[in-house]
Amino acid sequence: MKRNQLDLEYIASRLEGLEETVIFKLIDRAQFKQNDQAYQIGASGFSNEPHQCLFDLRMLHQEHMDALFGRFFVPEERPFNNNLPEAKRIVHLQATGLSIANLDIVNMTAAIKATYLALLKSLCQPGSDEQYGSSVEHDVYAIQAIARRIHYGALYVAESKYQRNPVVYQTHIEAQDTASLLALLTRTDVENRIIERVRAKVAATQERVNHLVRNIVNTDAVVDYYHNTIIPLTKQGEVAYLLNRRTTT
Amino acid sequence: MKRNQLDLEYIASRLEGLEETVIFKLIDRAQFKQNDQAYQIGASGFSNEPHQCLFDLRMLHQEHMDALFGRFFVPEERPFNNNLPEAKRIVHLQATGLSIANLDIVNMTAAIKATYLALLKSLCQPGSDEQYGSSVEHDVYAIQAIARRIHYGALYVAESKYQRNPVVYQTHIEAQDTASLLALLTRTDVENRIIERVRAKVAATQERVNHLVRNIVNTDAVVDYYHNTIIPLTKQGEVAYLLNRRTTT
Repeated sequence: MKRNQLDLEYIASRLEGLEETVIFKLIDRAQFKQNDQAYQIGASGFSNEPHQCLFDLRMLHQEHMDALFGRFFVPEERPFNNNLPEAKRIVHLQATGLSIANLDIVNMTAAIKATYLALLKSLCQPGSDEQYGSSVEHDVYAIQAIARRIHYGALYVAESKYQRNPVVYQTHIEAQDTASLLALLTRTDVENRIIERVRAKVAATQERVNHLVRNIVNTDAVVDYYHNTIIPLTKQGEVAYLLNRRTTT
Repeated sequence: MKRNQLDLEYIASRLEGLEETVIFKLIDRAQFKQNDQAYQIGASGFSNEPHQCLFDLRMLHQEHMDALFGRFFVPEERPFNNNLPEAKRIVHLQATGLSIANLDIVNMTAAIKATYLALLKSLCQPGSDEQYGSSVEHDVYAIQAIARRIHYGALYVAESKYQRNPVVYQTHIEAQDTASLLALLTRTDVENRIIERVRAKVAATQERVNHLVRNIVNTDAVVDYYHNTIIPLTKQGEVAYLLNRRTTT
């Protein structure tokens, strides 16, 4: 953990570890059906919450607790909710090497939430098993793992790449040239390698389980989510970071 | 989910599913070091909590939230803390088929907590990586999965076996004959099969991960915990259930 946090090889290995967590959590969620009622406003079962759904209530309570424990001091842990309480815990963090005034400039949670809820349609079996509480509990773990993967990549990959090539990046930043930044950040060969690794892992993880006991998820659903959502949102976050990067003077 | 909840084959398949969750969560926890500070009273980082450790505080906050959401209406979800708030959510449960006045008569959490904390010494690498918040977060998920496995087995296996052989069980119950009940509940061949399955799963789960990115846990640590703790505590819970079983009159 004392390695240089901006070493690109170290960042790639952390991204790979976070990727395994994302895959495990998605498979866990898929053990329950879609359970639409958990996402319907007014159907939470909380008598005093007519304007919320169970999923949103669970996210809010989880993040309320997480905020007290100091989770959001960590750069890659960005909250889905506003108006969370102050931390009650003193947390000692190592220097991150990041250079941004406010981490929530790179907060992709609105897009993550929308795409995650859409993913449930292809990830889970349709219908209801009435396990609403367990479903949203696993939703929270999955969506937090996805958000951690995206924000970690957005922040640390962007800063690392900037430091390798500051003159070129600075030119595009000053011109606010989003398209050139995106092109500079894109490595199609690396992205393809990630996609194939995700495909292999989803398949391997499910090969060894007892199919009579566990639901099997559609490998393409997870792979497509990685390809169409996780990687693009990470790059969008990288661009947001760079456009708001603070140059020390 | 509409299957007979007391069918022994169905119970065995659920126990096998819960077993996978336990294994995954233990491996997740082992990605962090032992981090003793997280279990030291007064070292939580919470300035207003001099008499608690971070682990206990996290458990309490988690269960406070879980109680509001109605988790403890579910028979196999027994709380580690007392004095939790009332649920704010109305939960509709199917009939369980269980026959006991108060589910917390079969609450094994004190023993689960003590044995889990001892397990960390053989599960995790020694020393500190300063990831105290993440460690206790994963502790909570792991210990809840372990408790669910033990209480589910204790309650449903006991009731199912009772119903298959009520006359013999009732004789031992009336005599409060713990030793005979334990002998009647014990199937060494089944226990050995579970142990070997756990061993194979721990090994297989770790075979396919990237060893440069993930810590590998000692298979024996998990197998021994299953053998010396999870199975015996489940049977102890079965006996407690039977001794307190309510006969409908």
